[in-house]
This record gives sequence, C-alpha cells and structure tokens, in this order.
Amino acid sequence: MATGKINVSVENIFPLIKKFLYSDHEIFLRELISNATDATLKLKHLTSIGEAKVEYGNPQIEIKIDKDGKKIHILDQGLGMTEDEVKKYINEVAFSGAEEFLDKYKDAGQDAGIIGHFGLGFYSAFMVAEKVEIITKSFKEEPAVHWSCDGSPEFELKTSEKTDRGTEIVLHIADDSTEFLEESRISTLLTKYNKFMPIPIKFGTKTETLPKPEGAKDEDPAPTQEVDNIINNPNPAWTKKPADLEDEDYKGFYRELYPMQFEEPLFNIHLNVDYPFNLTGILYFPKLTNDMNIQKDRIQLYQNQVFVTDNVEGIVPEFLTMLRGVIDSPDIPLNVSRSYLQADGAVKKISSYISKKVADKMNSLFKNNREDFEQKWNDIKVVIEYGMLSEDKFFEKAEKFALYPTVDGSYFTFDELLAKVKDSQTDKDEKTVILYTSDKEAQHSYIEGAKAKGYEVLLLDSPIIPHLMQKLETSKEKITFARVDADHIDNLVKKEDTAISKLSEEEKTSLKEKIDAVVGENSSFTVQLEAMDSSSQPFIITEPEFMRRMKDMQQTGGGGMFGMGNMPDMFNLIVNTNHELVGEILNTKTAKKRERLINQSLDLARLSKGLLKGEELTKFINRSYEMIK
Amino acid sequence: MATGKINVSVENIFPLIKKFLYSDHEIFLRELISNATDATLKLKHLTSIGEAKVEYGNPQIEIKIDKDGKKIHILDQGLGMTEDEVKKYINEVAFSGAEEFLDKYKDAGQDAGIIGHFGLGFYSAFMVAEKVEIITKSFKEEPAVHWSCDGSPEFELKTSEKTDRGTEIVLHIADDSTEFLEESRISTLLTKYNKFMPIPIKFGTKTETLPKPEGAKDEDPAPTQEVDNIINNPNPAWTKKPADLEDEDYKGFYRELYPMQFEEPLFNIHLNVDYPFNLTGILYFPKLTNDMNIQKDRIQLYQNQVFVTDNVEGIVPEFLTMLRGVIDSPDIPLNVSRSYLQADGAVKKISSYISKKVADKMNSLFKNNREDFEQKWNDIKVVIEYGMLSEDKFFEKAEKFALYPTVDGSYFTFDELLAKVKDSQTDKDEKTVILYTSDKEAQHSYIEGAKAKGYEVLLLDSPIIPHLMQKLETSKEKITFARVDADHIDNLVKKEDTAISKLSEEEKTSLKEKIDAVVGENSSFTVQLEAMDSSSQPFIITEPEFMRRMKDMQQTGGGGMFGMGNMPDMFNLIVNTNHELVGEILNTKTAKKRERLINQSLDLARLSKGLLKGEELTKFINRSYEMIK
Repeated sequence: MATGKINVSVENIFPLIKKFLYSDHEIFLRELISNATDATLKLKHLTSIGEAKVEYGNPQIEIKIDKDGKKIHILDQGLGMTEDEVKKYINEVAFSGAEEFLDKYKDAGQDAGIIGHFGLGFYSAFMVAEKVEIITKSFKEEPAVHWSCDGSPEFELKTSEKTDRGTEIVLHIADDSTEFLEESRISTLLTKYNKFMPIPIKFGTKTETLPKPEGAKDEDPAPTQEVDNIINNPNPAWTKKPADLEDEDYKGFYRELYPMQFEEPLFNIHLNVDYPFNLTGILYFPKLTNDMNIQKDRIQLYQNQVFVTDNVEGIVPEFLTMLRGVIDSPDIPLNVSRSYLQADGAVKKISSYISKKVADKMNSLFKNNREDFEQKWNDIKVVIEYGMLSEDKFFEKAEKFALYPTVDGSYFTFDELLAKVKDSQTDKDEKTVILYTSDKEAQHSYIEGAKAKGYEVLLLDSPIIPHLMQKLETSKEKITFARVDADHIDNLVKKEDTAISKLSEEEKTSLKEKIDAVVGENSSFTVQLEAMDSSSQPFIITEPEFMRRMKDMQQTGGGGMFGMGNMPDMFNLIVNTNHELVGEILNTKTAKKRERLINQSLDLARLSKGLLKGEELTKFINRSYEMIK
Repeated sequence: MATGKINVSVENIFPLIKKFLYSDHEIFLRELISNATDATLKLKHLTSIGEAKVEYGNPQIEIKIDKDGKKIHILDQGLGMTEDEVKKYINEVAFSGAEEFLDKYKDAGQDAGIIGHFGLGFYSAFMVAEKVEIITKSFKEEPAVHWSCDGSPEFELKTSEKTDRGTEIVLHIADDSTEFLEESRISTLLTKYNKFMPIPIKFGTKTETLPKPEGAKDEDPAPTQEVDNIINNPNPAWTKKPADLEDEDYKGFYRELYPMQFEEPLFNIHLNVDYPFNLTGILYFPKLTNDMNIQKDRIQLYQNQVFVTDNVEGIVPEFLTMLRGVIDSPDIPLNVSRSYLQADGAVKKISSYISKKVADKMNSLFKNNREDFEQKWNDIKVVIEYGMLSEDKFFEKAEKFALYPTVDGSYFTFDELLAKVKDSQTDKDEKTVILYTSDKEAQHSYIEGAKAKGYEVLLLDSPIIPHLMQKLETSKEKITFARVDADHIDNLVKKEDTAISKLSEEEKTSLKEKIDAVVGENSSFTVQLEAMDSSSQPFIITEPEFMRRMKDMQQTGGGGMFGMGNMPDMFNLIVNTNHELVGEILNTKTAKKRERLINQSLDLARLSKGLLKGEELTKFINRSYEMIK
C-alpha cells in the first residue's frame, strides 16, 4: 500500500479560476472593492485600538479606467501589505488572510462586519485580466512592493517607489473582456454592487455649480468646480437605528434604492436583530396595483453592505417576495443549493423572524391609525391574504388586522363582521352566511337585492380570496361564504318562514313546461320556480356557490377540485311565481306573444348577470329599438 | 527583483472545491455518470479501431445505494485505469485527461461526443462525500487498483482483487448530504440529468409480468421476473436522422420529455447542423392556451446527451422560448455570464440558425398542408407574431405564412388579404383600410355593420397585435388598420359620395343642443351628428383608433406613447340624423318624453359597446321590465 499527497498542478489553477470561480465575470469588481474596503476597515480598527500608530484620516477607494492602455486601476488607502504579506497572502492561493486576522483580533470586539466573506476574491481578477499588478505600501515602516503576474503561475516581485499608504491593483484587461473598459459598464456595476458600501468610492469627477459671488450680474455664468464623483452612500438607512430615522428618511432611502419608482411606498418595516442571527434591513410595502416593475425592483440581499443578489427565494417568506427593500445579513450562506438553503436552520429562523416582524408591524399600524390602514388595505391585501393562506402562524396573527371591506366602504375585522351580521344573517340551520361580491359593477342588481334585505355585502375581489374563504370556513365554526349571485337572496339566507305562491301546483307545472319549451333543454339554464316578493324581479339567473368557487380556485392554481376548471358554467333560472309578468306568461293565449315575453325577460335576466353577448345582444338591442318606436 | 511560482496550498483545495466548484451539490451524480459514460464510449472507440483487443459487449452503468453503510456506488464496464493512470489522472488535480485523449485520437475521427466537457468532474464527489474510493481494473493486462481519500489531500493506493473490467466509485456520504441516500432523491436526479445518456444506466430492479404459459387457468397468477431497471433511453429521438423518424416517434419523444403533458404538440422541428457549429435537437410548438406548465416544461439544453439546464435564455431567440423540446450542442459555453453569452459569436449563430429553421419549417408546413396550418394558427400565432415584431429577418420570412383570419373563418396571407379588399376597402385618399375586431362577441353589432357593406373584418385578438399593426403600417405602403368600432363604418372607409341629411342645419343645431343637454357636458361622450342610412342604428358609440391603440400598446408593454395608459377612455356618440327615432327626438314637445327617448337610445348604444354596467344597467333593466308590462 502506498500513500501520498494529491498534487495540484499549478499550471491549471488559473483556467480553473477563470472557468469555475464565479459564473459571472463581472463579479471581479465587487471582489476587489470588497478587499479594498476590508483593508480600509481593518486599518480603522487597528488605529482605534492603538495597534497602528498612523492617522486614519478620510480614506476613499478610487476606480480609474485607462481605456487606451486597456487597464483598470483600483486604489485604496487601507492597511497596505509588506513584502512578506504579499508572499503570504498573494503567492499562496486559498490561504485565507481574513481568517488569520479574525483569529488574532477576535477578542477585540467589533469583528463582525470587518471580515470579508470572499476569501478568494483577489484571484477573480484573472477572470477578466491577462496580467495583474499589485503596488502596495504597508502602514508599517517598510518599503513598498510591486507584484505582477501574467496569469501563469510565475510572478515577479520588486520594490516600488510608492510612498503613500495603501494598495493599487492594476488590471490589464484581456481581449475577451474589453467590455469592462467602458465607463458606462463600470458605472452600472458600481451602482449594482457597491452603492451602499461603507467606504466612499470615487469614480471620476463631476462638475458642481457654485453660488454666484455677491454683486455678479445676471448674465454672468455661475462659477463651477470639479469635485470627486462619489458613487456610494457609505451610511445607508438600514445601518442606522430606527430611532434616528424619520418617515422622510425611509422614503428617501426608498428613492435611493429604486430611482425609477415614482410611487411612494405604503409602509416600511425596519428589521434589526442580533441574536440568534445577525440581520438588519428595511422592507417596504409598495403599491402593487398595475406596477410593471414588480419583477424588476425586488428585495436586495446584502452582506455587510455588499450587494449579493436580488433573488431572496428561500430567505424571505414567499408571500413577502412582492415587497421591496434591503436585507443585510452575514449569516446567510451563499453559493449553496436552494434545497440546502431551505433546509438550513439559520435561514429558516430568518424567514420566520421576517414573517413575525411584518405581522407585528401590521398590527401596530392597524391599532395606531386604523383609518390610514383601511385606506391602504386595497393595496396590501394580496400580500396579507397570501400570507394568511400560506403560513398558519401568520394567519393567527393576521386575525387581528386582516380586513373585510363592504361594498359601502366600511372595513370590519372578522370578529367585528360576525358581531355585526350574526343576528340578521344567520339561517335556520344556525349558520351565519357571509355575503360577498367579486365585482360591484357586474353583480350590481344582486347586491341591491341583498341590501334591500338589510344584509351586509363584502367586496372580496383578490384572485386568491376563494382559497382564503375555504380556509376560513374550515377554521371557524358555523359560518359560510356565499356570493350574492349564488342563489336568490331568500335562499342564500334561508329563514323558517315559507313564502306563499300565488300559483297552484297545477299552474306551476304548466308554467314550467311553457318556460322550458322556450329556454330549451340544451341550454345551460335549469329552470326553478320560487315564490318570492311580487316586487322582486320576474326572472333571476344564479350560479351556485360550490361549483363556481371550485372553478375560481382552480384558475388561480393550487386548489379546488381537479378537472373542475374545464367544466361548463351551470346556471339556475329562477322564476318568481308571484310576479305580475310571470302571471301574464302563464295566461297568455298566443304562443308567439308568450315566447316573446319569455325571451325578453330571459334576456334582461342574462343582461343582469352579464351573460348576453354578441349576436344575441345585437338582436336584443334591435328588438328594444323596435319597442321604443 | 525576484520571481517565483504561486503556490497553491493543497490543504485548501478541497474546501475550495466544495464551496465553489458548483453551486448545486446535486451535480456530483451527473459528473460521475458522465465520467463513467466517457470511459465506456472511449472503450467502444478503442475496440472499434482495433486499439483495444477486448470484447466491448453490452456495457452498462449501475448506481447502487447502501443506506445503512451510508454509501453510493457508481459502477461502469468501461476502460478502467491502471495504477499509473490513477496516479496521473486522479492524483493530479486539474490535469485534463480528456484533453490528452483528444490529442492522441483526434485524427481517428468520431471525436465529438466522446470527450466529456466536465474535466474536473471527479472532484465534485467531495461536495457530498467525506471519503471517496476508486476500485478500478483497466482493459489492459494489469492488476486492479484501489484508491481512497478522505478529503484531505492524503490518499491511499493499493492493489485490489477486482477481476472484471471497469471502475467502481464508492462515495461515503457526509453527514450534511444524507439526502442523497434516499432512493427517491437519486431517482429524481437520474431522471433530471441522465434520462437520455448514451449508455444504459441501471438503478435497482423492477418486476415484469410475463405472458401466462399456454394452458394456464384464469385463476393462475401471471408469472413475473425481476429485471434490471434501466432509467434512461440511450438513443433519444434527436440523435437519430429525421428520415428514420415517423410523426408518431416525435409525439412519443414529446411524451418522454414531458410525461405530465396530456396535450399533443402541434408541430415539431428537427434541428441538425454540423457546420459552423454542432447542434441537434427537436423543438415542439405546444398548444399554449390555458397551459399552466408554460413555466415548468421548458426547452432543455443538453451537451452530448447530458442535461445541462432548462434556461436557454440567450441561446434560443426570445420569441421561441415558449416552445418546448431539446437542444444538444457541445458548442455552447457553460458557466459564463449571460452578457458574455449574448455577445458570443457562436451562440449568436446558433440563435439565428434556430430562428431561420423555425421560419423554414413554418413555411413548408403552410405550403404542404395549408388547411392543417390554418387550423393550428390560433395556437401558434402569438409565437409567430412576437417573432415578426422582434426579428426583422423573421418578419421577412413570415410574410409568406403569417395568417390574418377573418371573423367568418377565412385565413389570408397579407398579400391575399390586400388583393381581396383593395377594390372595396380603399378610401378616397387611396389608403386601403383593413378592418378588424379584437372581440367578435363584444363588437358584434359593429362587425355586422361592416359586413353589411360587404367588407372583410379580421379577427385579431393577440395581446401584441397592436404592435404588429404599427409595424405593418410603417413597413407597407398605403394601408391602415382600423377597429370596427373606431368610427361609423362610412367614416372608416370614406368614399367620395356624401350622404344627404334629412335635417336642415337649423334642425341639426337644435338636435345637438337637445342631446347635449341630456348626455351632459362632463360625460366621456362627444356628440357628433352624421347623415347615415335610415336603416342604420340611431345612436352609435365609437372609440377613435389612435388613442385606443396607443393605450393597448402601453398595456402590453414596450411601445405606445408614454403616459397614454392612464388617460381616460374617450368616446364619440354618433347620432344618425336620418333615423326615424332621431326625428322623433327632435320633434317631441314634452321634455320628459324626449329625455326618456334619448336615455333609452343612449343606453342601448352603450350596451352595444359594452359600456352599460352596474347601477346604470340595473336601472335600464328595471325600466325595460316596466316597458314589457
């Protein structure tokens, strides 16, 4: 038996890095700026504990493009490196400098946030550069060094004339990566990844207009000056304490995050937790109605102010992914598979923390300013309702603030609603019937019918509401939801008293035959005679709740009964045996006149339910013009 | 100045692999099976050219799970490795064995397809295993060897008793990866990545029912036998020649690809090209209507029969991403950024090849069986229309087969349409007006009006059609599209002859005043008097084309005029001064009766245009019931 060491062939490490390190080459800039930031923050830390006897000052990081020379420079004023450190940290691949630093200073406190999470970051330079130079001067009293490497494992190391503290990285951009020599490309990358990094980042200069000196004439041009163009905000709102922020600050930060959003957010939720995991952030409820940017402006995930991704699937509860804002946590593992992420204990805790935090915030907003909350309900209901459906804990918490609006603009919590309607809307089987409409306009005549009885009608129009009703019906006792057009109102809330029909049984049989003959056997209408108020309409078309709801649920996915989605619509045609016109239909001697009466009444009932269309509508209109003349 | 070699610290290569090699750990199985496949195909090649003097036989690859022992075994009957080869290929990381093999046999032909593209594949084993063993016997007359490594760079190498040719990999699954010991998990992975790999892959056994022997009684159970459970189809349809495939074979392969799809595909397109790039594949046009699986069942990208991804963005033209099927090409670079992919010359060529191939296929389908093509038009039009909008080359080719259906079920190409309508539908300014409806039901009465004049009305109802009209109007000369309800039909196709009005100018002024008084100044209707046929309807509501189309375009995105989407709808109320009822309105003495006539006519016109809703509809219905009685 033999043993040995696996030999990593260095000739192949650079192609390996180029191919596998990151699938997205643009990442190199984020990595190098992260290193520059770490080097600067480390210096800040060392000066603060007296380990470095130099002036920290106001360091910044600078990015320069030399298009003609095909180079990008990244300069910082951080720790710098001595020759020994270059040998140790640069010439030894995968030797994690950050880890050693952490070990040494772990008792000095303040570690979190100092250590970069991207240990191999420097080598990502070779994804875009055919040659890389490092010119660096340590804060220690040692000569500056100049390292260079052309992507082969051979490197060169010499002393340098550099006198000021810090590190300059020079990337000689490879021919397949010249896109990164475009100012606009770099500018886009800086905005994407570094917009909120903690050290100011300079990229070129910009012209600022100064106030005119006193006594200047109107025609004199205002004086201008060139100033550094700082592309980042080193102190974004989420890194501050909630107590230090006004409402205006939150709105301002929203505009900073999403400059193309003109609508203001409805609410914000400041996240801030230390234990058992570290997480800060601000979430916003946007106005979702008609928003084309839902897919584009998503929640952004940062790690220590470095942008990582805007795919927060698995980290933020699914029902909150429609929200906007920022989450910053060093505790979220990167580069792992989604299934791993979803199984990870820490991530699960983060997700349920966020969910709880949102519920608490909603609750306090509801309690503190109910009127404002009601006004915004229509814009947030989809999120809340979806949360109630998908998370039982959220469902419980939402009981306190989830609202049920009526067609008349009142807003009830479920308990309030029940208290309001229990007396009048409980049927003979002791079930309380909650009436609703999905469309105030299309179901107008049915709503009027219910209101005439003194009933409340809810306006429930979210696409997922049928699913939520289903859940409410099973989790509450003795309640049931019914859409106003599911049956005639006297049948929807069935009381003990039976109505008296003007017609005898014989007359009823005769009437039904006559109507069936016109309506036709193959139609989708089932004729049903009912003794109703003589002032109710003669013909009413209804659509039974169960079938319709199952179909609605199937259309929005994830529920209902399989195959229901393709079933034809089924309607009942309710004929009011106590209406004068129905009496006339029964008693008319001429078949032609009877047919005309039935057809016109049927058409009016269909109009009322939105079922009269196309050729039949045109015929109806022509017939009606005839009747005006 | 000093020079030196960058030293890759081997202690850190395994964590590096684990963290960075692939973001998705499940990939390990694909990689190891790819290696096993390569080893088998290489042996096949060597025996075929006489370099290996062994029997190739019917080799297969076997996957075994040992749940109790926490192990996964992957066995093949391929080349195997000698001790020297293990040292060379396994102990030297990133030494690409495939490359050397390619160099040696590149003149022997048949190389493409033999060489794996995943040089580092073997090490991905360490993403899920804490220890890996290789037991391998070469096809050469040399003893078998047994290599093992626990993830540190230390390995062990000894001789083995293995006597049959091939390689067995044993993975000792790490505690954080025990999910891979579940049979269902492995089965899912095999189906995802290896369903069409070229060597049979065995995973367990299954019970097969045999035919009953002759003379068996009815109550005798049918005999069964255990057979290998082969999870893949080594010869999927796209690897065969189109000439060898029947229509049924294409449909069968579709079911193989998407077992949950019950609808048959409409068309298939067999892709097959050698130069300037290698690509095979089959694309299918699915029936898109109401299909919930659009997002799930997407085009799959393979490389030499190994599944890579179902994200083909950048490779397949955007307008074809709704299609289904398979693309197999070794020439598509993986692990590169999307922006790189889109700029890559080879990928651009692939994309335009696919686009051209689809256009050619559509054209031949149209020519060879126009009737069938017409029947399927409704299901494929969105793809074709989107292609015409987004690619000028496709637009040109599609001129020959893009169809314009009429409300009566005829289908014209654009040229045919123009030939048909040019005489009758050219207006006094020599523009040919192409009439269309977006909804046969909702615009029924307007369609009838146009048909009464002998005009053709197209049924154009795709959401992107307004954009396509815009493009056609600018690319063709002297044509214009107008929806049937954009104006009264006599105004839509304006001929020289002016109609004579029954009313004098004075009467007109008086009439307009009376109608304006009822319709109201703040309504969205602009009253317009027109002298039309006395048989035309008295009141007609129209919606001018330009505004409406701009709004439609904004709603579907990417066009129209900014801000138009939020403008209120504007309508014209056209009053037919030659209609009897209008004469009555003018001459009625009682204001109340006049008002009622105007309101009822207005309501009927609104009904016709689908504008009468909610409370106003309920009022209209009640008023109409009154009138029946």
